[in-house]
Amino acid sequence: MNEIESLARFAKTASRRLAVLPTDVKRRALGAAADRIEADADAILKANAADRADAKELAGPLRERLKLDREKLAGMAAGIRAVAALEDPVGRLLSRTLLDDGLRLDKVSCPLGVLAVIFESRPDAVTQISSLALMSGNALILKGGREAARSTAALVASLSKAFEGFPGIPADALAIVTDRAHVDALLALDAFVDLVIPRGSNDLVRYIQGHTKIPVMGHADGVCHVYVDVAADTRMAVDIVADSKLQYPAACNAVETVLVHGRAAPRILPPLVARLREAGTEIRACARTRALLPDLVPATEDDWGAEYLAPVVAVKMVDSLDEAIEHVNRYGSSHTDAIVTDDAAAAERFLSEVDSAGVYHNASTRFADGFRYGFGAEVGISTSKLHARGPVGLEGLVSYKYKLYGEGQLVASYSGPGARPFRHEKIPS
Amino acid sequence: MNEIESLARFAKTASRRLAVLPTDVKRRALGAAADRIEADADAILKANAADRADAKELAGPLRERLKLDREKLAGMAAGIRAVAALEDPVGRLLSRTLLDDGLRLDKVSCPLGVLAVIFESRPDAVTQISSLALMSGNALILKGGREAARSTAALVASLSKAFEGFPGIPADALAIVTDRAHVDALLALDAFVDLVIPRGSNDLVRYIQGHTKIPVMGHADGVCHVYVDVAADTRMAVDIVADSKLQYPAACNAVETVLVHGRAAPRILPPLVARLREAGTEIRACARTRALLPDLVPATEDDWGAEYLAPVVAVKMVDSLDEAIEHVNRYGSSHTDAIVTDDAAAAERFLSEVDSAGVYHNASTRFADGFRYGFGAEVGISTSKLHARGPVGLEGLVSYKYKLYGEGQLVASYSGPGARPFRHEKIPS
Repeated sequence: MNEIESLARFAKTASRRLAVLPTDVKRRALGAAADRIEADADAILKANAADRADAKELAGPLRERLKLDREKLAGMAAGIRAVAALEDPVGRLLSRTLLDDGLRLDKVSCPLGVLAVIFESRPDAVTQISSLALMSGNALILKGGREAARSTAALVASLSKAFEGFPGIPADALAIVTDRAHVDALLALDAFVDLVIPRGSNDLVRYIQGHTKIPVMGHADGVCHVYVDVAADTRMAVDIVADSKLQYPAACNAVETVLVHGRAAPRILPPLVARLREAGTEIRACARTRALLPDLVPATEDDWGAEYLAPVVAVKMVDSLDEAIEHVNRYGSSHTDAIVTDDAAAAERFLSEVDSAGVYHNASTRFADGFRYGFGAEVGISTSKLHARGPVGLEGLVSYKYKLYGEGQLVASYSGPGARPFRHEKIPS
Repeated sequence: MNEIESLARFAKTASRRLAVLPTDVKRRALGAAADRIEADADAILKANAADRADAKELAGPLRERLKLDREKLAGMAAGIRAVAALEDPVGRLLSRTLLDDGLRLDKVSCPLGVLAVIFESRPDAVTQISSLALMSGNALILKGGREAARSTAALVASLSKAFEGFPGIPADALAIVTDRAHVDALLALDAFVDLVIPRGSNDLVRYIQGHTKIPVMGHADGVCHVYVDVAADTRMAVDIVADSKLQYPAACNAVETVLVHGRAAPRILPPLVARLREAGTEIRACARTRALLPDLVPATEDDWGAEYLAPVVAVKMVDSLDEAIEHVNRYGSSHTDAIVTDDAAAAERFLSEVDSAGVYHNASTRFADGFRYGFGAEVGISTSKLHARGPVGLEGLVSYKYKLYGEGQLVASYSGPGARPFRHEKIPS
């Protein structure tokens, strides 16, 4: 048994205790963790400074994400307290059925067990993920980036110290590994790890999806569309596309392809293109769009389905709502897609027939976010259709079990000739 | 593009239409399908006779499962009508949140898309699966056993003929393949197939789980336990173990290992063993059990975790509730496990800490079944923790999407200095 396997085995054992942790203990433990992060600020910032001193070769944005300061630490502590204030997702009675007199079936939410979260150079992810894991009653194995190893270790040490005061929280409930080689070891442990959550680049997500039998929550691509319908208001269309692209171009919910109905194109495209260009956006256009606006860069087949994560957008003219829906379903990534139109029937068809986690009418794709949806915390955004889909809050970290309470009932009594009938009476829960 | 890929691509396109099929159309189409199965009885039974004539070398139980007769066909038609009477799982409003004035977020249930169901020599599975798929708005690719090829083709022909009368149901909504080689082709089509459901032997399930990136619903093993606690009523314990083992030993929810508290063993084991032996059950016992009842067969380490699917049961003495819970979590398959006890606190600990889809107090493990749970129909039993867990009814064949209805709202308005706050007002749905 290698080191990672024994870590995961201990985490699994710890998860049984976390599963039955009362809500108030979880809340108090998270409060203690937030206090401890603030009390340990000097040590954490010192560890972070050492990480950054060794990371001078990192690209600007990565180095920026690595950086902690007092303000960020205060925000992290506030984030822990915000998670502690959320409704406990564990132990909720989801349904209750009286199968027969004295035979009651309860469907009850329960934790998944052991989460493995693999993230890159963002030490602030440590407190966010750890608090979500504890609140949802799950044990957690963190695999952080090597470049943030000391920051991550300092944060985990603070959290572990805080949790020590709570006898219901075993020391094995929170573990950290930093060696790149440990990723593959972790991904092989489907006997102990219940869910893998990759937080990082598309390449990281794709690698993990391709190398494990453990369910993976997340998304590799965010190829979002805005379709500007023939019945779209010009100004609204321009504003929504601009917000969807420019508000944060590197986000997974930023628009990558804009579809414009051919009959709306002459009035929509000139102000839209002007607005995007003004903001420095590169536009790659289909042949018909270029017939209208010849100085645009031609799009190639590769542009449909491309995730630029940058101020670049593809534009394509379509002849119908059907063609728009088909394009989105074919080239999209089932993340978030919007229609701009004043035609409610067209909107409802788009929302029903586009097969994406988020389908929007007259709103920016950038709303696809757990905080904006009102979840209070976000685990990530899932484009899988099983279990959690779209922005995922705490409820994405729980499952359910059926608890059957009997008085000695046997199936033989309900079978064959003279079988007793079931009552199957739903009891409001 | 191979034949199976084009089939799956067409099924995906068909699934968009099925997703918006009104409930009453689905109900009428299923009614027509039930009528058609009855009207085509002669042709179906003729095809079945031909299959059986070629299947003389099949083992008895397999040949029995292959057999159709008028009574079975009537039952199949009744099954289709029962599915038609179930609540439509599609289009249910799961939650509604007012994010802000004029910005409404609806969480709505929707079909998964394309199901691939791989089953062995049970032609009656065709009507059951097809009706569940249609009612849940999913396209379906069936892979039946070669030995049932003609029966399956005749049944699918009848269903397709019935569905032809409904313009909203494309011909590609229901497809069948029978060639063994097509299984691997299907399993590779994660771009088009949303869920694979294997219905057959454990080997089939394991093969499929190991050879696809598509989510698989089902379970390979059913290693169920009954733990007889120190505070168990003797007669209830004997009855529950006997029912759990003997009521249908080949079922996945039959008990395989009985754990008995050491202090209860002297009063429980003699009548329990007598009862099981009387019914011809082979008992494999741990050393301590054999110290009490020396003529039992010794169990080996392989017996813990074995799924006999036969009148064989392993018996082990444990010293505590904790040891019982640990044994179940270690050797079980997270399917269904029961405790027999008059101690409510011990029961609640077992139900909370055993990590299985079904955890029972004073009831037979054989209750783990969609019909007994009151679902009206069963897709299968899942031991996965993500998405559907335990016996799965129609709701296991749907996902959800978020529909956001706006009036041109931009994320920029809710960001940065002077950001507008969200309302996040839950509206009872």
